[in-house]
Amino acid sequence: LFEPGDVADGMVQLEGARAAHLIDVLRVAAGRQLRVGILDGPFGVATVSAVDGRTVALCCRFGTAVPARPGVDLLLAVPRPKVLQRLWAQLAALGVGRIILTNAYRVERSYFDTHVLTPVCYRPLLIEGLQQARDTRIPIVTIHRRFKVLIEDELDALSSGGMRLVADPGAPLRVAAQALAAGNERVLVAVGPEGGWTTYEQALLEAHGFLPIGLGPRTLRVDTACVALLGVVHAQHARTQSEEGVPV
Amino acid sequence: LFEPGDVADGMVQLEGARAAHLIDVLRVAAGRQLRVGILDGPFGVATVSAVDGRTVALCCRFGTAVPARPGVDLLLAVPRPKVLQRLWAQLAALGVGRIILTNAYRVERSYFDTHVLTPVCYRPLLIEGLQQARDTRIPIVTIHRRFKVLIEDELDALSSGGMRLVADPGAPLRVAAQALAAGNERVLVAVGPEGGWTTYEQALLEAHGFLPIGLGPRTLRVDTACVALLGVVHAQHARTQSEEGVPV
Repeated sequence: LFEPGDVADGMVQLEGARAAHLIDVLRVAAGRQLRVGILDGPFGVATVSAVDGRTVALCCRFGTAVPARPGVDLLLAVPRPKVLQRLWAQLAALGVGRIILTNAYRVERSYFDTHVLTPVCYRPLLIEGLQQARDTRIPIVTIHRRFKVLIEDELDALSSGGMRLVADPGAPLRVAAQALAAGNERVLVAVGPEGGWTTYEQALLEAHGFLPIGLGPRTLRVDTACVALLGVVHAQHARTQSEEGVPV
Repeated sequence: LFEPGDVADGMVQLEGARAAHLIDVLRVAAGRQLRVGILDGPFGVATVSAVDGRTVALCCRFGTAVPARPGVDLLLAVPRPKVLQRLWAQLAALGVGRIILTNAYRVERSYFDTHVLTPVCYRPLLIEGLQQARDTRIPIVTIHRRFKVLIEDELDALSSGGMRLVADPGAPLRVAAQALAAGNERVLVAVGPEGGWTTYEQALLEAHGFLPIGLGPRTLRVDTACVALLGVVHAQHARTQSEEGVPV
């Protein structure tokens, strides 16, 4: 995956880590073809035109179609740095349009000052996940320190018009599954902090259209819950958008 | 969670790391009540009877009911040690009855010699996951170096009578969802190695009743795929066993 600025007239000059990977791991030579893509742009095919010392020159042809942004967004209370670090690539691989990180009563303040919330940390991890899943659409990440302001004033502009779900260990899966089966275009899934949302936060979410969705009675770690829930939502989503158009 | 041998006449003497956790993190004193459980046994309530130096004495009362073993088993081609290390606790938390680890053509031989396949490594991680999810039933782990022998001769004794699914990036979700909706009691889910099963392996699985199940067109890392797929299967399973008895 290239940054849009990497490509000039279909030519890309790679240096550094990516060139080293091509030379040392893939052992490319002139003429070798590679699958490539532009971040938030189309896929393409690159032909190695020259390998010169530690530099690789590629000649690229890109398609015109840009993949659609994934139909699922995630609203996530900022988890422990170690957990978030593990999540970035997995979220990008599973496919999310937006990652909306929020404060909550049970989120420790110190989490906001960690490097895992800086683009210099998370952007390469997101790109790693996209490369794994063969997608070019990088999730849009926003960080919100005021939960109430986010839910009441900002959320509609970030993710509107779709279905809203909030993970709730106690909730039955049924409600949300029925709603999902109705075939909403976008889905926004909210996952709370390690200790859960407070009663006030849960009520504010429900007042703004979030329906509780359960994954059974087991309490899961935040990263496990995110991946399992995105799996369920993607599966249900794919099913309702399948050629049959009916839930099975 | 205690090992069955820890408890004598309802009394438990804790030393070492678990006593240190109670004393230094939870700061328990005599009279404090704690939720406890016996591995593969019932839940109970423990009352701290004494804290003596670095030893904690607990007086426990256990219920009579043992939680049911989770209705889902996992057949997994041995992944990279780093990936498996991350998976153990998550698998136990999501709930699996058995973890059947197998060789496959695209599994590196060296993976079998790593410490993540030894009980001394994985047992504490499984217990960590059970504690997270509040379950006592530890997954049964078996390791099989011969794929063909496992599938042809051993698998029926390990996991029989239920639905069998094999994760397949290219497969539609529909088929398996319909089969799951038929309400099978046990489900066995197979997840292949990083590079996928070979054609031979895939055919052998299908000949032994495994139906392909997809999670959409995205290629996922093995740990992400396991967690997402177990999420889907558990959700579908819970739904078909719900009071309505009809899939939604």
